[in-house]
Amino acid sequence: MRIGSRTFVYEHPPRIAAHASIVGPKESKGPLAAYFDESSQDDLFGQKTWEMGESEMLRRCAARAMEMGGLAPEEAQALFCGDLNDQIIATGFAARALSVPLVGLYGACSTFVEGLVLAAALISGGQLQNALCAASSHFCTAERQFRFPLEMGTQRPPSAQWTATAAGCALLMAGDGTGLRVTAGTLGRIVDYKIKDANHMGAAMAPAVESTICAHLDDTGAAADDFDLIATGDLGWIGREILLQLFRERGRPLPPEKLVDCGASLFYQEQDTHAGGSGCGCVASVSCGWLMKRMERGELGKVLLVGSGAMLSPTSTMQSESIPGIAYAVRLEVK
Amino acid sequence: MRIGSRTFVYEHPPRIAAHASIVGPKESKGPLAAYFDESSQDDLFGQKTWEMGESEMLRRCAARAMEMGGLAPEEAQALFCGDLNDQIIATGFAARALSVPLVGLYGACSTFVEGLVLAAALISGGQLQNALCAASSHFCTAERQFRFPLEMGTQRPPSAQWTATAAGCALLMAGDGTGLRVTAGTLGRIVDYKIKDANHMGAAMAPAVESTICAHLDDTGAAADDFDLIATGDLGWIGREILLQLFRERGRPLPPEKLVDCGASLFYQEQDTHAGGSGCGCVASVSCGWLMKRMERGELGKVLLVGSGAMLSPTSTMQSESIPGIAYAVRLEVK
Repeated sequence: MRIGSRTFVYEHPPRIAAHASIVGPKESKGPLAAYFDESSQDDLFGQKTWEMGESEMLRRCAARAMEMGGLAPEEAQALFCGDLNDQIIATGFAARALSVPLVGLYGACSTFVEGLVLAAALISGGQLQNALCAASSHFCTAERQFRFPLEMGTQRPPSAQWTATAAGCALLMAGDGTGLRVTAGTLGRIVDYKIKDANHMGAAMAPAVESTICAHLDDTGAAADDFDLIATGDLGWIGREILLQLFRERGRPLPPEKLVDCGASLFYQEQDTHAGGSGCGCVASVSCGWLMKRMERGELGKVLLVGSGAMLSPTSTMQSESIPGIAYAVRLEVK
Repeated sequence: MRIGSRTFVYEHPPRIAAHASIVGPKESKGPLAAYFDESSQDDLFGQKTWEMGESEMLRRCAARAMEMGGLAPEEAQALFCGDLNDQIIATGFAARALSVPLVGLYGACSTFVEGLVLAAALISGGQLQNALCAASSHFCTAERQFRFPLEMGTQRPPSAQWTATAAGCALLMAGDGTGLRVTAGTLGRIVDYKIKDANHMGAAMAPAVESTICAHLDDTGAAADDFDLIATGDLGWIGREILLQLFRERGRPLPPEKLVDCGASLFYQEQDTHAGGSGCGCVASVSCGWLMKRMERGELGKVLLVGSGAMLSPTSTMQSESIPGIAYAVRLEVK
């Protein structure tokens, strides 16, 4: 990466050797249901608590990716992983069960893409031969942690997003040959437009997404039209509109037909999620399920995947701080 | 890193071009006081809340490291950073103010060393030319988040550690020449000895530290005697004893005179911290203040710095889960 740039253009782009996705009951009734590798009707995933259920979902997802990629756990060199729980406990307990070296990340909902950017850079530079990149989220763990106990049945405003119960994991490997690859990655920088409404995440994160897409295009000399799809995760329906407006105001409009949002794609509007899906697991599962499978089938050749995170906490919200947004991007290509 | 190993031996080891440390009022009365670059008598650091105070301390520390290293903020390529607050808000708000690309990490108290391992690997491989590695902790933000409101004046058990109000930041740069370098780094793996007492962190983390030191020595073919110092952070006085015992039981005893613990070094026993210091900022400030300065003065030539984290949360504690420990290590050398 040259000074002044935020983008790695990988000299030896790693192959996505395998990718796995698991979703919960509500997500398995959405429009992308057929794309996920596992759809659980038990949101406890056989555990006693939602937190340990989320952790089990994440563990199962990473184990599945290793199995699909033919990698034994003792050969896995690093698990780049995070989740939304305080102190990323879903990740910690999953990594304990997997016994794979852990790189614990926190980028809120951008975590999955943050991991891809870092892991691909380390593989490209020859530091690692393989890496797992994963993230999870769970509606029930997130609601009670960030908002209110579910038992209260709190009414959600129209701008609120629905934290997906989902996990995704991609196995990156060094080596030549054809297939799906991570060919470039852009680091995120905090952008804060002074949004203070913790039920309006799309608005808080859209400026960071705009900043990262612009940085990626400028750093690589590309145009939005060079991509078959720009996939954001997760702005939801409202945030997606705000992003399009920000680009129009900047005088470099994004072609709306090329812009999909993972959160806006995971649920039907009738599923009562309001502004769409969100959560680390949303972009991870939709990428590993929907996008990567479509790329492998030849339906998409070049995708810019942008994961965005809102770096707030209940404490910062109670202290009337605004919401710092961040976004990371990776260029996925079938070569 | 070869398959089966956990250790990067950096082909082009980055230089630690600058390092800065800031501590709070209590830490500035401890035995290492003279080594820190800034000792604040205001634990709010001019802000309205402890959380924003911690964030300001962290921002100031990273800004100071850039200034000392002669690096303009727009030249800084990445800030590898984390803290103990839920959703690492001290880091998020500091990164907003610094406007440097952020790699958000969570490794509990191991975060600073986790960042060093990753950043050094990326610089060694030519992916980055420079990187800031930082972490912070604050007694008042940690107590009310992990334990009880400070106003309750809760009695602490003898095995409890005292979360340091401190931050440290190291600026890593590519390039040849003499000086202090990060020459190898070992990733952590979760080790859980089923400790459930959240006031006994040294016991929970010592097995992970043992695992990482053994992995480092085995992966590099080194012996404990090859180091002038093995510095752990932060096991405290009790955890340090447990570590020595674990190594004795394994039949490869560590020379006790070579083992220092950052948490056990930061405070005088009379300062009533019980088992010693802890927190992301403890190992970060003690490394950047005490250890790196002593290395530059020629007092130490080769140090193994091991940062350890307890990957629990108040939720996992309330759910009666045990405490997963993790530890990362870097070899620091004056060349």
